[in-house]
Amino acid sequence: MTDKEYALFEERQQARGIDLNTVKEKMKSLKIETPSWGFGDSGTRFKVFKNRAAARTPYEKLEDATEVHRLTGLCPSVAIHIPWDKTDSYEKLRRHAESLGISIGAINPNLFQDEEYMLGSVTNANAAIRRKATDHLLECVDIAKITGSRDVSLWFADGTNYPGQGDIRARKGWMQESLAEMYKAMSPEMRMLIEYKFFEPAFYHTDLADWGMAFNLANKLGPQAEVLVDTGHHAQGTNVEHIVAYLIDECRLGGFHFNSRKYADDDLIVGAINPYELFLIFYQIIDASADANPAIRDTVNKIAYMIDQSHNIEPKIEAAIRSVLNVQTQYAKALLIDLEEVREAQERQDVLGAEAAVRKAFEFDVAPLLESLREEQGLAPNPMEAYKSSSYAKRVGERG
Amino acid sequence: MTDKEYALFEERQQARGIDLNTVKEKMKSLKIETPSWGFGDSGTRFKVFKNRAAARTPYEKLEDATEVHRLTGLCPSVAIHIPWDKTDSYEKLRRHAESLGISIGAINPNLFQDEEYMLGSVTNANAAIRRKATDHLLECVDIAKITGSRDVSLWFADGTNYPGQGDIRARKGWMQESLAEMYKAMSPEMRMLIEYKFFEPAFYHTDLADWGMAFNLANKLGPQAEVLVDTGHHAQGTNVEHIVAYLIDECRLGGFHFNSRKYADDDLIVGAINPYELFLIFYQIIDASADANPAIRDTVNKIAYMIDQSHNIEPKIEAAIRSVLNVQTQYAKALLIDLEEVREAQERQDVLGAEAAVRKAFEFDVAPLLESLREEQGLAPNPMEAYKSSSYAKRVGERG
Amino acid sequence: MTDKEYALFEERQQARGIDLNTVKEKMKSLKIETPSWGFGDSGTRFKVFKNRAAARTPYEKLEDATEVHRLTGLCPSVAIHIPWDKTDSYEKLRRHAESLGISIGAINPNLFQDEEYMLGSVTNANAAIRRKATDHLLECVDIAKITGSRDVSLWFADGTNYPGQGDIRARKGWMQESLAEMYKAMSPEMRMLIEYKFFEPAFYHTDLADWGMAFNLANKLGPQAEVLVDTGHHAQGTNVEHIVAYLIDECRLGGFHFNSRKYADDDLIVGAINPYELFLIFYQIIDASADANPAIRDTVNKIAYMIDQSHNIEPKIEAAIRSVLNVQTQYAKALLIDLEEVREAQERQDVLGAEAAVRKAFEFDVAPLLESLREEQGLAPNPMEAYKSSSYAKRVGERG
Amino acid sequence: MTDKEYALFEERQQARGIDLNTVKEKMKSLKIETPSWGFGDSGTRFKVFKNRAAARTPYEKLEDATEVHRLTGLCPSVAIHIPWDKTDSYEKLRRHAESLGISIGAINPNLFQDEEYMLGSVTNANAAIRRKATDHLLECVDIAKITGSRDVSLWFADGTNYPGQGDIRARKGWMQESLAEMYKAMSPEMRMLIEYKFFEPAFYHTDLADWGMAFNLANKLGPQAEVLVDTGHHAQGTNVEHIVAYLIDECRLGGFHFNSRKYADDDLIVGAINPYELFLIFYQIIDASADANPAIRDTVNKIAYMIDQSHNIEPKIEAAIRSVLNVQTQYAKALLIDLEEVREAQERQDVLGAEAAVRKAFEFDVAPLLESLREEQGLAPNPMEAYKSSSYAKRVGERG
Repeated sequence: MTDKEYALFEERQQARGIDLNTVKEKMKSLKIETPSWGFGDSGTRFKVFKNRAAARTPYEKLEDATEVHRLTGLCPSVAIHIPWDKTDSYEKLRRHAESLGISIGAINPNLFQDEEYMLGSVTNANAAIRRKATDHLLECVDIAKITGSRDVSLWFADGTNYPGQGDIRARKGWMQESLAEMYKAMSPEMRMLIEYKFFEPAFYHTDLADWGMAFNLANKLGPQAEVLVDTGHHAQGTNVEHIVAYLIDECRLGGFHFNSRKYADDDLIVGAINPYELFLIFYQIIDASADANPAIRDTVNKIAYMIDQSHNIEPKIEAAIRSVLNVQTQYAKALLIDLEEVREAQERQDVLGAEAAVRKAFEFDVAPLLESLREEQGLAPNPMEAYKSSSYAKRVGERG
Repeated sequence: MTDKEYALFEERQQARGIDLNTVKEKMKSLKIETPSWGFGDSGTRFKVFKNRAAARTPYEKLEDATEVHRLTGLCPSVAIHIPWDKTDSYEKLRRHAESLGISIGAINPNLFQDEEYMLGSVTNANAAIRRKATDHLLECVDIAKITGSRDVSLWFADGTNYPGQGDIRARKGWMQESLAEMYKAMSPEMRMLIEYKFFEPAFYHTDLADWGMAFNLANKLGPQAEVLVDTGHHAQGTNVEHIVAYLIDECRLGGFHFNSRKYADDDLIVGAINPYELFLIFYQIIDASADANPAIRDTVNKIAYMIDQSHNIEPKIEAAIRSVLNVQTQYAKALLIDLEEVREAQERQDVLGAEAAVRKAFEFDVAPLLESLREEQGLAPNPMEAYKSSSYAKRVGERG
Repeated sequence: MTDKEYALFEERQQARGIDLNTVKEKMKSLKIETPSWGFGDSGTRFKVFKNRAAARTPYEKLEDATEVHRLTGLCPSVAIHIPWDKTDSYEKLRRHAESLGISIGAINPNLFQDEEYMLGSVTNANAAIRRKATDHLLECVDIAKITGSRDVSLWFADGTNYPGQGDIRARKGWMQESLAEMYKAMSPEMRMLIEYKFFEPAFYHTDLADWGMAFNLANKLGPQAEVLVDTGHHAQGTNVEHIVAYLIDECRLGGFHFNSRKYADDDLIVGAINPYELFLIFYQIIDASADANPAIRDTVNKIAYMIDQSHNIEPKIEAAIRSVLNVQTQYAKALLIDLEEVREAQERQDVLGAEAAVRKAFEFDVAPLLESLREEQGLAPNPMEAYKSSSYAKRVGERG
Repeated sequence: MTDKEYALFEERQQARGIDLNTVKEKMKSLKIETPSWGFGDSGTRFKVFKNRAAARTPYEKLEDATEVHRLTGLCPSVAIHIPWDKTDSYEKLRRHAESLGISIGAINPNLFQDEEYMLGSVTNANAAIRRKATDHLLECVDIAKITGSRDVSLWFADGTNYPGQGDIRARKGWMQESLAEMYKAMSPEMRMLIEYKFFEPAFYHTDLADWGMAFNLANKLGPQAEVLVDTGHHAQGTNVEHIVAYLIDECRLGGFHFNSRKYADDDLIVGAINPYELFLIFYQIIDASADANPAIRDTVNKIAYMIDQSHNIEPKIEAAIRSVLNVQTQYAKALLIDLEEVREAQERQDVLGAEAAVRKAFEFDVAPLLESLREEQGLAPNPMEAYKSSSYAKRVGERG
């Protein structure tokens, strides 16, 4: 049945002027980085449930990530977290990854789990603690050089819980000072990705609270500093795709931490709560990918797509597979938008026509396209089922 | 200087028709329960910072609570959490509290920290887990009988993270079933306080998501079931004092869990983020306390005021002192509202006049009143300073 | 191509155990009421743009509604607003509707546009204004009797803008008093639908602020009073489908006012901003429609689906067509959920399996199903295109 | 009694090291601009209630504003709106204002009430409409030159209601293009104040949605472009005082539109819903006013404080008086913060100490200070009462 479905699907798309071979080429270049910490235990402040199948060592994490890549063809790199993935030799870690057929992706410093960081890391009023935090950033730059990672991803828990607790403007200056030092240490091909967050764990003010603060900081630091958008780090109602389009237009969108939220930073599986929003994010990206300005096209090409979730009740590997397939699905749909049709409707001020031109692509069932693509790539048509019946799943099930 | 200030303050209030002796009598009857868990370590999902001064045993917790009561005169009882405060003999625990001059307050079951409760406790699709959860509720009723506690406080983490994960209506039925069984086990003078929460740790749906669900359940169970309002458990923008007034009018407001929030369930010190909201809550309560309907007056009299916060970066005992003083301060201000003035302005449709009549009471500096009251009660005029210079503080500082 | 597509679609659904004939039968019974005021000019507080094609008289409104029904087969009734649709003879209006092949639907009183209602209608502190408001409600009951309308839909703008402005509990009592009087006036087959709203135009407190207040009031009034859910009247993040499931379980869900929102009560075209939410609402409804309890099934059968939007920049009739097709699309998708598959996954505590069982139905492209259905109903396969090329559209374009 | 109260108040402040004469000097330099449109009728999309006392002509508006200044000594200038205050001769208008003892303040272009602006003004896809909009901006620059206004305040309703409706990045470019042209037309002492808004009347995306977009645009335009913060234009939970501190630190805070909100852009009387937030905004401003960096001090000195509210149910002049007094009250309280005490607590990492050092100033009752100040300024001690008993109030009451 699948063949017939694909044939019909192709016929319908051709009739709309959409060439599926072009679509498939673009889909083959989609890469989504999984995080090593996504394969270990995580949870809420109330309880971290022990997941029998969770990876217990950095090695197991890399292997789990490799399995996700083997099944989906989408995840050739793994982000690591220092010190969670601390090891004697990052050279060895790099070779281990390579031996598995993947690579080490973004390096993620941790500046929130040391007792000294209770009132801030790079924005702590205590200069010695700021020094320590900056040193950790420099250490991560060094690690990135060894692992061959292009990106160092920065998320800061820094902020305050009460009015008056901290000197907001002084902290702003300290943040800039620390990152300027780190910036200088990077080699020319490296990038610093600056993440922002609306709140949590700080509940009064967060030093980098929104895209504007991350963006302004990146601007001051230089062209190798870019903004990282975590889809769960905004106020309710925020139009995330607007921010995405804006940052691309400024050539400052470095990448994503993908996940879903309904309330706060819920860190659920990406695309599970509001799939249309994910589609609309890709619509902005794809629209910009054909921009006349080469700097904008270059920005789009370098976007790092990364998963960052907290699987509290989900089995880890299944959750990772589900996540990357959700991303792939919405990306595929967005590629089916007839951008010319949209533009024409916009130009003739046809509100409903322009909206419909975007929306219709979301309504297509892309299952035939995805299955055909996987066949071309030598993958199982349904990665989730393939995983469940794999010997790997059986082995993982016996962990712990 | 204080005497002069009080005299002037009294003069001004008398000129408005407010009798401070009446105000003081009401203030003397204010009781705020502290939670045993507020004296131990707590934090966010990112990190629980070790607070050197945190209580390490149930005994230390009771002693810390006693110290807070000794200094403020406001906290004659302590809520306990089962199993965090599990002990061989609750009879002994009760006597220990009594020997300290305080009593055991509300019993708080814990239905979220056992591995089996990952997908729900009383609303779990597995009947055996529901049975276990209900048994724990019955155990807490038994404990309450021993400790002499009037109230059992119920908060459920139960809910789902994804659409389709659970059968929302079946879970609603299971919740009712379990609580009906518990209800029957209570003795006639006991109360079941049902708490609701907008979200967290469940991120798609929470079985008791708002006051309406808790209220409807209480209605079905019977007159000993009432609603517990946690000031941090609402959607952004929710008018909490409206809910308070509504529940009083329905004679179903059982009590409060006080804390502050700016974003989600931030669990900061009550009154620290939006003190006017706390004042407006007390305005509704005080307004109802003089109602012609004795059932409403009775409801007001039985309201249990409890603190429930998560002190992540604050020293525990200071945070508790600060919290109860914040509550006392806003209560005092609300008692200075001239309710007759408000009513007259409301009746003549004078919007700004009615608003001003309420607001002006918030603007008074009640420090002279509080100091005079403490003097009458034989307390130090400034409980926080008294604590800091106490031998107790010194001993606590040497903990851990 | 369509026939082949439908055949393939049917084949795939059959393989899943879904019988499309049953689905189609259910789809044929879907009725969505359009509002007369949706065909006239509307806007924001900043500007009401003159839409050349807007209906100018009640007669034109009925005709526009008829055209939408003619094209979609979904809209056999029109809600009217008193006094916007005030007329000498409602008997005549009824006959006019009947002559067009439609009927008069819900009667909507207006208690917010008279100068006297500035500080409240049925909750005004002035008894004479409350009397006037109640009389208007009684008038609407009388009109409903003449027009043969089953439902009277109540939305109140009543609330306050400032703390202290109104006596919250007194207003609660006045609301109940007024509606009790109206309730008595209804004939046995009539229903009172009580709408709630989080805020606007009242900005401090709204007398009926959430489903809980509307539900409690309906409970007190009697079985003919039910709750009306407007999808745009909730706090950010609110799980609307949870409320829907809850109200069905209590046999108190009377109907919907459908529209979309991203921020506040944006009143955009339903299904345009978050289509998955609309699908999940229908999932709850369809799940309950097969309940063992006949009272629940009966509640589901009587749900009134109504559109209530404010088309600020959209052409009116196209917007109405688009709206009802969006509803039909999500309803069709929800009918493709294999409820048994969901239930089994829920029972074996398979979080991702249960979620996927619901979600997969959303991913189907139901265009072949809808086109096949329309063919059976004798409708054009694409109602929007049919409208655009119709003589009616041409005539409407020449209005104003 | 007042004299005694002031003496005691002064004594207490002196004991804290606060010199009231310095405080009074600062208070005397506080200027709050009222908007001409605040004296006319306004409302919600549901109804604009006719306020008998509303000003009917630009002349009456200036006179009402003059009366507010006469009573409070706080409002020496009035913002005007073009074309609402359109007149034959702005030279004449300027002289009229001067004859009343006030001046014309910020010029506010209107780019949302012309039919052509339905889908955008300076971001409209139609170049002719963009031209028209830009011309209006240039006209406003010309008017400012005549009226002697330093500031032109820009708020754009521009945005879209549906995904796909507009080309987000193209619109961003058009906005910049238009403002660059306007920027060039300004004389060197003029400023362009760029306002942002989270949403409304656009409900999908707003072209200038947050401070980051306004800030980035100002940065690109040049030093005469600054950001205007409207306190009601943020997402729920946003820490407005953080944004204020941030913009001051970047020397880009041009001014405020003050008002209160609990939900969306409610436009209620400033300081009425969350007075502590207003106090905390002034805390950041006062803290920066003593900065070592002269550019920051200069930024603070040039902040334009403006009221922008929509009085739906309030009498206009009373609402204006109330508003500016609320601002003055919180400003006075913030001046009582002992900044040194705060800083020391911050440096010793004393969370509760730092918070208390800020908060204690909020708790002072500044009535004695305000009355003493007014006496020095030759004003009535209670401006609201003075107004109510004035002949002006009587005359205004007879309007309409």
